[in-house]
Amino acid sequence: MTSILALNSGSSSVKFAVFGSNFGILAKGQVENIGAGLKPRMSLTRIGDGNAIALPPDLSSHADIIPHLIDTLILPVAGKLAGVGHRVVHGGTRFATPVIIDADIREAIAELAPLAPSHQPHNLAGIDAVAAVLPGVPQIACFDTAFHRTIPEHRQLMALPARFAEEGLRRFGFHGLSYQGIVRDLPRIASKAARGRVVACHLGNGCSLAGIVDGKSQITSMGFTPLDGLVMGRRPGRLDPGAVLWLVKRLGGDAKAVDKLLNQEAGLFGVSGISPDMRTLLDSPAPAAKLAVAMFVDRLVQEIGAAAAAIGGVDALVFSGGIGENAAPIRAMTVDALSFLDLRLDQDTNARNAATISPEGTRPSVHVVPADEESVIAESVRRLVA
Amino acid sequence: MTSILALNSGSSSVKFAVFGSNFGILAKGQVENIGAGLKPRMSLTRIGDGNAIALPPDLSSHADIIPHLIDTLILPVAGKLAGVGHRVVHGGTRFATPVIIDADIREAIAELAPLAPSHQPHNLAGIDAVAAVLPGVPQIACFDTAFHRTIPEHRQLMALPARFAEEGLRRFGFHGLSYQGIVRDLPRIASKAARGRVVACHLGNGCSLAGIVDGKSQITSMGFTPLDGLVMGRRPGRLDPGAVLWLVKRLGGDAKAVDKLLNQEAGLFGVSGISPDMRTLLDSPAPAAKLAVAMFVDRLVQEIGAAAAAIGGVDALVFSGGIGENAAPIRAMTVDALSFLDLRLDQDTNARNAATISPEGTRPSVHVVPADEESVIAESVRRLVA
Repeated sequence: MTSILALNSGSSSVKFAVFGSNFGILAKGQVENIGAGLKPRMSLTRIGDGNAIALPPDLSSHADIIPHLIDTLILPVAGKLAGVGHRVVHGGTRFATPVIIDADIREAIAELAPLAPSHQPHNLAGIDAVAAVLPGVPQIACFDTAFHRTIPEHRQLMALPARFAEEGLRRFGFHGLSYQGIVRDLPRIASKAARGRVVACHLGNGCSLAGIVDGKSQITSMGFTPLDGLVMGRRPGRLDPGAVLWLVKRLGGDAKAVDKLLNQEAGLFGVSGISPDMRTLLDSPAPAAKLAVAMFVDRLVQEIGAAAAAIGGVDALVFSGGIGENAAPIRAMTVDALSFLDLRLDQDTNARNAATISPEGTRPSVHVVPADEESVIAESVRRLVA
Repeated sequence: MTSILALNSGSSSVKFAVFGSNFGILAKGQVENIGAGLKPRMSLTRIGDGNAIALPPDLSSHADIIPHLIDTLILPVAGKLAGVGHRVVHGGTRFATPVIIDADIREAIAELAPLAPSHQPHNLAGIDAVAAVLPGVPQIACFDTAFHRTIPEHRQLMALPARFAEEGLRRFGFHGLSYQGIVRDLPRIASKAARGRVVACHLGNGCSLAGIVDGKSQITSMGFTPLDGLVMGRRPGRLDPGAVLWLVKRLGGDAKAVDKLLNQEAGLFGVSGISPDMRTLLDSPAPAAKLAVAMFVDRLVQEIGAAAAAIGGVDALVFSGGIGENAAPIRAMTVDALSFLDLRLDQDTNARNAATISPEGTRPSVHVVPADEESVIAESVRRLVA
């Protein structure tokens, strides 16, 4: 029996999962705090007690850490690896499905790096690190943008002269592997609604939502970059274009400084001045924390309304990601504001983060579906290397 | 009996209306093509046949044209003027109601000019021109932002560090005089719905919508500037903040060039490459014209969905402005996409631009309410100088 490794190299983290036969998990964990002068810290959720495990002190980059993980943790439990799958953030307009990585594909992924400068280089570092230590093992790229290539063309474009779209400026959307997992898992808990109109909210460090009809993305709140749409831990979501130009002027014409402001110093963190972490803000009595939470919910409610309008209504509303799976008060405030769409919440099941949190038999239904990007990656690997 | 003059000095136009007793219109017209090297052209809709009337060739600015209008057209029909009301685009956070203009108020309006650089200076030019030729006649400023000061604080703010809001960066909203007219006029055609939840769409050269509850604005699609929200004749509406930064980089770091692109070369005009005029695009068989129309309707549908979510549903949907009042196909496509909100259209009354265009007795109802900013201004003047 052969195993599959799924790797998710984020901007400051590496998540990994090893799947055996029938997708049973043999090992799973993550390393956080990579780069940025911090001390990387590893935690395991399988083969171990979930506590942090010390890494050798000389490992500080994705390129160092991934071979170490493979040698010390992954190969001992995996045996022979049939393939390695990578989350790759940007697939541009070319990649609508997962692909086996060869020299040409690697080059294409590298060429897309300017569209996702804080993620794509780390995805490539992961691919190169695996190629070095596991030569001959097939590697598969699974793109976060791919799921959204079914969005109608007029909705992928911006209302700008066509020459900019030809240069690559269009709404791509992200979190596609998470949505693909929701599309896979929802039928088990809401079989009929899953074939209808679903608004799925991925609320993690980054937050987006997607309007999905019959399993296909029709609209998403993120656009060309992961900045648009919902309020996030450190990103503002939707901003007036004139506000962005005002910020460029305000920061002395330095567009890079505005980019940093919008990617690192805005959102929940920027508004509250306290934390980008929703748990901290929900526990805080500070008015600025309450303001940040109110803005988060308000934008979420508006974007759900916009997505519902784009897909002609809602049969099921799904919450996923760290906030979506665990923040019962956020789900409650959101669903309460959407009662005009006949959405209702059951307080008990909501408090327990249950799979169905609307009262039994009500339509549309409301659900919690855990994000599981690693198993989506593993399934793609199995399909392509079988 | 005294008269009232309402003046609306736009970026390249002056609209005027003279109201007699009981707000009967004594004269009404507009001068277009002011500035930009074009030949100004005057048309009258009252006291005249509606055709263009030649202006003396040496008049080319707001400051020249307004005194000429007052001397040759307005005073002969107006007799004694009780007051002159001006549409002023930006009232910042200070002005939530119309005010009599004195030296302090004039200064405050001038200080707000950086927030509306292509409009506010023309508003000021109108105020100064009237002061010169009609000394002693009270002048009243009616602010386009004032109607939206009832929007909840957490929705006026952006998800950015608080210091930027302290410097003035917040969602102001515009087209307030148009919405105020809708709030005034809707009870006559839908008395019950007018006290409920109304989504009003002002679709003219600029386009925005407002979610209004019991006559008070709760949300609007424009923000800090008139760039956000709906697709417009030459503006793109909502754009990913990252797309704006990409454009700044693409245009060599020149934020002013991006400002020009987004204010003059985008929107319906930019997408179609044909025209910013909806009539032209609806008549065109060109695929790019159809794309521009589809994008216009799609953004409008999404923003209506977002506003409906923010105010908890819709009792009445209102169309206003040049497109809203006259483009039956746009209204039809929009309402058809919103059938999940129980919105329905009557084909006959819609084709006739009737005041109520939903089938009789259906709730929510759909209406066409002509924009009438001038009479809203005149009423404010009457109230303040009575």
